[in-house]
Amino acid sequence: VERQEVADRPDPFALPDISALTIGIIGGTGEQGRGLALRWAAAGMRVILGSRDSARAEAVARDIGNDVRGLSNVECAEGSDVVVIAVPWAAHRDTVVELERSLRGRIVVDCVNPLGFDRLGAYPLSVPEGSAAQQAAALLPDSRVVAAFNHISAVLLLDVNVAEITADVLVLGDEREATDTVQALAAMIPGVRGIYAGRLRNACQVEALTANLISVNRRYRSHAGVRLTDV
Amino acid sequence: VERQEVADRPDPFALPDISALTIGIIGGTGEQGRGLALRWAAAGMRVILGSRDSARAEAVARDIGNDVRGLSNVECAEGSDVVVIAVPWAAHRDTVVELERSLRGRIVVDCVNPLGFDRLGAYPLSVPEGSAAQQAAALLPDSRVVAAFNHISAVLLLDVNVAEITADVLVLGDEREATDTVQALAAMIPGVRGIYAGRLRNACQVEALTANLISVNRRYRSHAGVRLTDV
Repeated sequence: VERQEVADRPDPFALPDISALTIGIIGGTGEQGRGLALRWAAAGMRVILGSRDSARAEAVARDIGNDVRGLSNVECAEGSDVVVIAVPWAAHRDTVVELERSLRGRIVVDCVNPLGFDRLGAYPLSVPEGSAAQQAAALLPDSRVVAAFNHISAVLLLDVNVAEITADVLVLGDEREATDTVQALAAMIPGVRGIYAGRLRNACQVEALTANLISVNRRYRSHAGVRLTDV
Repeated sequence: VERQEVADRPDPFALPDISALTIGIIGGTGEQGRGLALRWAAAGMRVILGSRDSARAEAVARDIGNDVRGLSNVECAEGSDVVVIAVPWAAHRDTVVELERSLRGRIVVDCVNPLGFDRLGAYPLSVPEGSAAQQAAALLPDSRVVAAFNHISAVLLLDVNVAEITADVLVLGDEREATDTVQALAAMIPGVRGIYAGRLRNACQVEALTANLISVNRRYRSHAGVRLTDV
C-alpha cells in the first residue's frame, strides 16, 4: 500500500504551463514589484503593474518595457489571473480589503513581510492572523492565497547585470493547483526554483526569516537568498 | 568615516581556533545528539555525551568510538566548555532549569525546535519567551546562549556514507565571541558552514522553519537543509 501511494503521487517537479497567464502586481511600482515585473516580462509573461496612482504605474511600466502595462490596482487585479501583493506591510490589510471583490477567483500571491526595525536591526512583527499570508486568506475567502517571493532580493531582481539569481522561492499554500502555479511562476526567473514548503499555517516563519537575511546581509555585505539542499 | 568603519570590522569568515574545547551534548543519546557527536569526534574534537542515564550515555559513546565519553547530564555540562542542548522540546525547560548551576560560564547551544504535529504535518508551537533559545537564555542568566543546528538532518549526520553535508548552520546570539565559537563548531562538520544569522530575538523563525523543512521532505522525499546564497 505504501509503495502504491508513492507511485500515485504527482511528480513534485512537474509544474504546469503558465505561459497563457497574466500576472498582476499590486504595489507594482515598489522595488520588489518592479523587480518581479522586470524578470517575468523578460521571460515573455504578460505583466500588469498596479498602483493607487495609475499614471505612476504607467510610467514605471513604460520604463520596464517588454509590453508591461500600468493600471490602477483594481484594473490590475481584474485583468490578471495571478495577482501578487507587493505592498508595504503597513498598507497590507487596507489594500487587501479594498481589492477583495477584484481578487475573487484569482490566485493571490502574498510576498509581504511583517517586519519592524530598530537600532538592533529587523525583527518580526506579531500578526493576529498568524502571518501576512494568513491575514490575506482570512480577508479573501473567494481567492486562493499563496505565500511566496518573501526572500528574493529586490536589488538582485532589478540588477540587469545579474543574469541568474541562485535562490529558491519557498511556496506555501493549501491548494496544490495554486501552489504548483506559483512554483512555475518562480521558475520563470532565471536561476530560481519554486519549492513547495508547506501549508499557509507555516507562512509566519518564512516571512519572519527575512529579518535573519537582513542580519546576514549586514554581517556579510551580501544579498542573501535561501537554497534548500538535497532537493 | 563609512569606509573606516568597514575596514575596522572583523572579517565575518575568520573564526576562532576551537580545537582545545570540549563539547558536551545534553540529550546526547538522541538522534540529533548522536549525529553531532559522531561528526565532531570524527573531526578530532573532545566530546562528552550526557544523559539522565549515565550507563546509557556510556554505551552510546562506546558505540560511536573516537574517545567520546558518556556521563550524566550534570557531569557532561561541568566537564565541557560548550554545551549543546539536544533534548526533546517537552523536556527543554526542566532540563535547562536542572542544569542551571552546571551550565554557568559556558556557551550553551540550543538546537531544540518547539514543534507540534497533527495529521497535516508539523507546525510551530508558541513559546512564551519567544523561542526555545530565548527560554534557555531567560533561565540561564550566567551562560551565553546561542541558537544553532536547528535544521541539520540527524539522518544525514548519522549516515557514515554521507561524507559531506551541504548545508549552512544558522547561528544566532547576542555575543560575538559565543556566536563565532559556535560557527567554528559548525564548520568542523564536513560540508557545513556556520553563518551568523542574527540576534537571539530572531531565533523563533529559525526554529519554526524546521516545520517547513518537514513539509519539503514529505513532498520531495529529501533530507532538506538550508544554504544561504550570495554568502
